[in-house]
Amino acid sequence: MAAQPKWFPPGADCDANQAELFGRDLEEHFELPERLADKSASLVEAVNDFHYAMLNDHERNEFYRRALAEQIQPSDIVLEIGTGSGLLAMLAAKAGARHVYAIEANRHMAQLAQHIISVNGLADRITVINALSTEVTVEHLGGQRADALVSEILGTLLLGESALQYISDARERLLKPDARIIPAGGRQLISLVESEDIKSITSVQSWGDLDLRAFNVLQDTVSLVFTKQYGFRFSSTKHKMIVSKATVADVDFHTDGEGALPLEMTVELTAECDGRVDAVLTYWEAYDSREKTSVMSTEPSATEGNFARDMQWGQAIQLVEEATETGPQPFHVKKGDKLELVVRFSEDSAVMQFSLQRA
Amino acid sequence: MAAQPKWFPPGADCDANQAELFGRDLEEHFELPERLADKSASLVEAVNDFHYAMLNDHERNEFYRRALAEQIQPSDIVLEIGTGSGLLAMLAAKAGARHVYAIEANRHMAQLAQHIISVNGLADRITVINALSTEVTVEHLGGQRADALVSEILGTLLLGESALQYISDARERLLKPDARIIPAGGRQLISLVESEDIKSITSVQSWGDLDLRAFNVLQDTVSLVFTKQYGFRFSSTKHKMIVSKATVADVDFHTDGEGALPLEMTVELTAECDGRVDAVLTYWEAYDSREKTSVMSTEPSATEGNFARDMQWGQAIQLVEEATETGPQPFHVKKGDKLELVVRFSEDSAVMQFSLQRA
Repeated sequence: MAAQPKWFPPGADCDANQAELFGRDLEEHFELPERLADKSASLVEAVNDFHYAMLNDHERNEFYRRALAEQIQPSDIVLEIGTGSGLLAMLAAKAGARHVYAIEANRHMAQLAQHIISVNGLADRITVINALSTEVTVEHLGGQRADALVSEILGTLLLGESALQYISDARERLLKPDARIIPAGGRQLISLVESEDIKSITSVQSWGDLDLRAFNVLQDTVSLVFTKQYGFRFSSTKHKMIVSKATVADVDFHTDGEGALPLEMTVELTAECDGRVDAVLTYWEAYDSREKTSVMSTEPSATEGNFARDMQWGQAIQLVEEATETGPQPFHVKKGDKLELVVRFSEDSAVMQFSLQRA
Repeated sequence: MAAQPKWFPPGADCDANQAELFGRDLEEHFELPERLADKSASLVEAVNDFHYAMLNDHERNEFYRRALAEQIQPSDIVLEIGTGSGLLAMLAAKAGARHVYAIEANRHMAQLAQHIISVNGLADRITVINALSTEVTVEHLGGQRADALVSEILGTLLLGESALQYISDARERLLKPDARIIPAGGRQLISLVESEDIKSITSVQSWGDLDLRAFNVLQDTVSLVFTKQYGFRFSSTKHKMIVSKATVADVDFHTDGEGALPLEMTVELTAECDGRVDAVLTYWEAYDSREKTSVMSTEPSATEGNFARDMQWGQAIQLVEEATETGPQPFHVKKGDKLELVVRFSEDSAVMQFSLQRA
């Protein structure tokens, strides 16, 4: 069995940390609808934080509809990890699968998926399994391995929801050797950006004749923060690309598992114009198949007209500093300057950290 | 002594919950600059979350500069609660105060304020006191009560940072009876809004021929959520006002203290146009003086050209439902419809909850 994932889906029944009920923060004289009173807080918070947005990301849905329509055969047993509302399982059934097994870790969500599948007349084609995928065995799948796996357990970071662990575990234990995996893989990308908007909320210079620069000593230049946590859409900020696009990791879900990525690596970059590097911007691409016929991307240009995608995935940002004795200073570059970006991956490959230096 | 506040400022040394050090989530092979390694996580996170944005909200700074210039006399002892970078204390000194006592609850922030005050040549005019304001006594102020109080402890909700408790406590123990208080008071306001953007990330209807409406049973219609947590700027969304502006609380910092607001009240409203009420939007106004000569506002129209204000305060939103047996449904209204908004305040008046019903 493959390494255990460190990230658990919201409300997973096997995770004692997620057992707290919704409404725990509401005072007694506040209203709490009965429909929410028995649900776990992490489930309700996740659904309202990004599930609705995800379901309304029509380009995401269409990427999966097309990939399933092209790759699923009438004889196929399809497995889905993390079905949520049941949407991808229903698309797999509509693509013609013989049967779909849809795994969902939260019991309320599993019941709801079952209900939505019934409403849409697909109950005889789809079986919902209430478990974490790492607990599912071939017996749950009627005793045979599946022909194809579909999942959408991609976070703001490509591997932020432990997709590498969940998919490689399912591949080794629950899929036929030549099974198709959708998405087939992905690429974690970065840009180096200059942005007055970002600078205006992450550092301070002066106001009137008052010098406030010493306050920048508290600037956090080591955490990768989701644009959503900052509270803005990167696609709607004014920005300039100092380095427009570079790859930091290529992942193939047909072969890779834990340990596929190094703990540390260095990417050589060249400044494409004069400017100030305010931040490393991260985003990703995922591919329908190993042929990469169709791409789903979280690059800002791909989310510009897609409010839902900005609100469900967005991008992540890490501020960049030129370290000095008195604290972080702006990192100025000239066109053609050689730079080195040190990329550190967490042990489980889910998180990254960057350090920019001159080559 | 007045009731104890429930909200503690980030990194307050007296609050054991805030003692965790920054970097606790970073793996060992990740980088952590020395300047951040000894700081509390909540302090660094707050500074990066909203302090930089706050310091770059130039309209906010100008509101205070003008109020202090108009109200501070050369003989005045001025007290500031929560000085942070020291900016408002420095503006009070520049407005001519005889002496300023600046209270700051975190020891690292207090040292930094002291340093910034020195850099700006105001060290002999300002004394930084490292304590929570409720722990400060008249002895800290050289044995006499202050002539004026200035503070900016306003959250996304007017009273969300326990301003009512901190200011009334200081007023009763540390100020002269006729002391000026800046801001003098404020007003918590609401609108009822229709917004396709908000609807698109907080509910789902269908995709293709698949009916997903049952998923709305998990919609959170009882929590007041900051726009910043949603990840968008309300001022940049497409929206329509069904009720444009109504007051839910008026606060006078010269007289009010804990218990000034009711636990529950009902506001009568009339729909100003046909539409669908998707959410209650909350925002506030604060006044320089009891004459309300100058206003600082978080109304979306007041933040449109002020990215920093959207990123530091923004607004808060609570979704609205028309409750049915199968779950929440959209709340449609016609122009002229009479509505009742039930407003519930938490025991400490810091938080609100709303229920909309037909009159």
